[in-house]
Amino acid sequence: MRTRAMKAFFLPVLLIALTHGNVTAAGDPLPSWNDGAVKNNILSFVEKVTNEGGAEFVPPAERIAVFDNDGTLWAEQPIYFQVQFALDRVKALAPKHPEWKDKQPFKALLEGDKKGFVAGGAKALADVVAVSHSGMTTEEFETIVNDWLATAKHPRFKRPYNEIIYQPMLELLVYLRANGFKTFIVSGGGVEFMRVWVEKVYGIPPEQVVGSMGKQKFELRGGKPVIVKLPAVDFVDDKEGKPIGIQKFIGRRPIFAFGNSDGDHQMLQWTAAGTGPRFMGLVHHTDAEREWAYDRTSHIGKLDKALDEANAKNWTVVDMKKDWKKIFPFEQ
Amino acid sequence: MRTRAMKAFFLPVLLIALTHGNVTAAGDPLPSWNDGAVKNNILSFVEKVTNEGGAEFVPPAERIAVFDNDGTLWAEQPIYFQVQFALDRVKALAPKHPEWKDKQPFKALLEGDKKGFVAGGAKALADVVAVSHSGMTTEEFETIVNDWLATAKHPRFKRPYNEIIYQPMLELLVYLRANGFKTFIVSGGGVEFMRVWVEKVYGIPPEQVVGSMGKQKFELRGGKPVIVKLPAVDFVDDKEGKPIGIQKFIGRRPIFAFGNSDGDHQMLQWTAAGTGPRFMGLVHHTDAEREWAYDRTSHIGKLDKALDEANAKNWTVVDMKKDWKKIFPFEQ
Repeated sequence: MRTRAMKAFFLPVLLIALTHGNVTAAGDPLPSWNDGAVKNNILSFVEKVTNEGGAEFVPPAERIAVFDNDGTLWAEQPIYFQVQFALDRVKALAPKHPEWKDKQPFKALLEGDKKGFVAGGAKALADVVAVSHSGMTTEEFETIVNDWLATAKHPRFKRPYNEIIYQPMLELLVYLRANGFKTFIVSGGGVEFMRVWVEKVYGIPPEQVVGSMGKQKFELRGGKPVIVKLPAVDFVDDKEGKPIGIQKFIGRRPIFAFGNSDGDHQMLQWTAAGTGPRFMGLVHHTDAEREWAYDRTSHIGKLDKALDEANAKNWTVVDMKKDWKKIFPFEQ
Repeated sequence: MRTRAMKAFFLPVLLIALTHGNVTAAGDPLPSWNDGAVKNNILSFVEKVTNEGGAEFVPPAERIAVFDNDGTLWAEQPIYFQVQFALDRVKALAPKHPEWKDKQPFKALLEGDKKGFVAGGAKALADVVAVSHSGMTTEEFETIVNDWLATAKHPRFKRPYNEIIYQPMLELLVYLRANGFKTFIVSGGGVEFMRVWVEKVYGIPPEQVVGSMGKQKFELRGGKPVIVKLPAVDFVDDKEGKPIGIQKFIGRRPIFAFGNSDGDHQMLQWTAAGTGPRFMGLVHHTDAEREWAYDRTSHIGKLDKALDEANAKNWTVVDMKKDWKKIFPFEQ
């Protein structure tokens, strides 16, 4: 009885295994990745670090995997999604701020004067981030982000921003966790902006999100403790800030890191410099049709020096057009 | 056959359950805690939040438990252990710094002039922390801490400092984790000082340690990336800093918090103010014989306002002398 039941169960699995490329007994763990060197790099890395008794075995506690967010787990065009959130927030707040009609950068923004707003440079953006990301409690901010996600739509795909995510990377996150990895986000984006939705979307809990942050203040309001978001930058988790963020928040060097831009360069270098097996990956945006194609000269997600080092050191570079069968979960 | 085997297995367990007080099928999870209200508070809290289908069930992802370290998980007398580390470090470095012979606070410290050193106040301590905790890479610092733990001995117990830990709290950590809790340290101590040893001693991984920290710098040394510890304070994880630290590093409000001093007051308030079931605990140092007895007037681990609020709001206060059968693992 028992043997017959087992045969009945395993035969279909075996058939699937024989008719598909990279598969485990449970089927292909990365079905949206085309067969090839990139997919093989991932599978063989995970196989060797989980092979107990093997020369390159890594204990589960040390299987730390870090992922950039913008351009690596979700898209970042035509502008960073969190910047769009900030711009939308200014418009929503405008009725309560009649003074903005005559005050830059708000004036340009509210009049749809893109050129005027861009002319304001980093200072203009900082002013917009300040009014949209501070002056409220952490709980109020969470509600604001949730409301925005429930209503705002991406201009090209006409869907909520947290659906413009990469299906192959979702599969990779699940695959790594199934193999004992702890998956972290290490992003230049705001940590409190991400924590609101990443658990549901990526399966990454708030305590495994590292990001940029503003200063905060604890106070009692009528006996009730609140944490208030202040209009001052505390930590920028980008470029050199990424290995620092890893050291501060995780305190253990990753063995697996994935990014897509020069902002991830130092995080990849830091990962590469540890002892034992290492995986360094870059998403190269090469698909102008299904997504976008940009790299060395892009204002967003510029990928130049990190690409050179990846090529020189044989890091894994995903050619989005060639390596990804499917890009977004909503594709047919 | 099967039923007989099950009886053979369950009968002894049943007998143990009948002859002991608070037990689960696997035996008493907190054997170093005396029976009484405190132990019952802990057991009944864990029981209700893990009771699937119960009114106070909490999903595993939200079972965040935070623990202060100094005076809560390990002892803090006669001086904070990390301060002892800093003082020992200055003595070890002295041969390379002949100028310290004429420079305060190092002069007083090296001459054993306690009074002179204490007269230097916070500035003297900051100077000692700076030279002992910065000017090296994070990897070099890890080696220094490990070497100190391997050689330094506590003046009263004549054992390494990481053995002067509380057996009942070790059992509590294990018990919580066995019930799906994620255990974190949230301590005023230095995060990099703790991360070196807490995983082995408490079973708490580096990424679940929140603490005070200095500024850091990423740089390439001969092509090799390093992170250098700078002599500047970045974050103080004490008092109002503790809820901020929880928000910054964990991003989710705990449902369970344990401290021992006014430095933990705001962390307990923040935990208490969430919705749903909550557990707030304080270790009250009441055992002058086996450990130390101190509270409202102590220079170290002062427990005054938090004790008042605990009494007023029925938080759980551990009377160390009465509630703990055994204090240290090395006791017979």
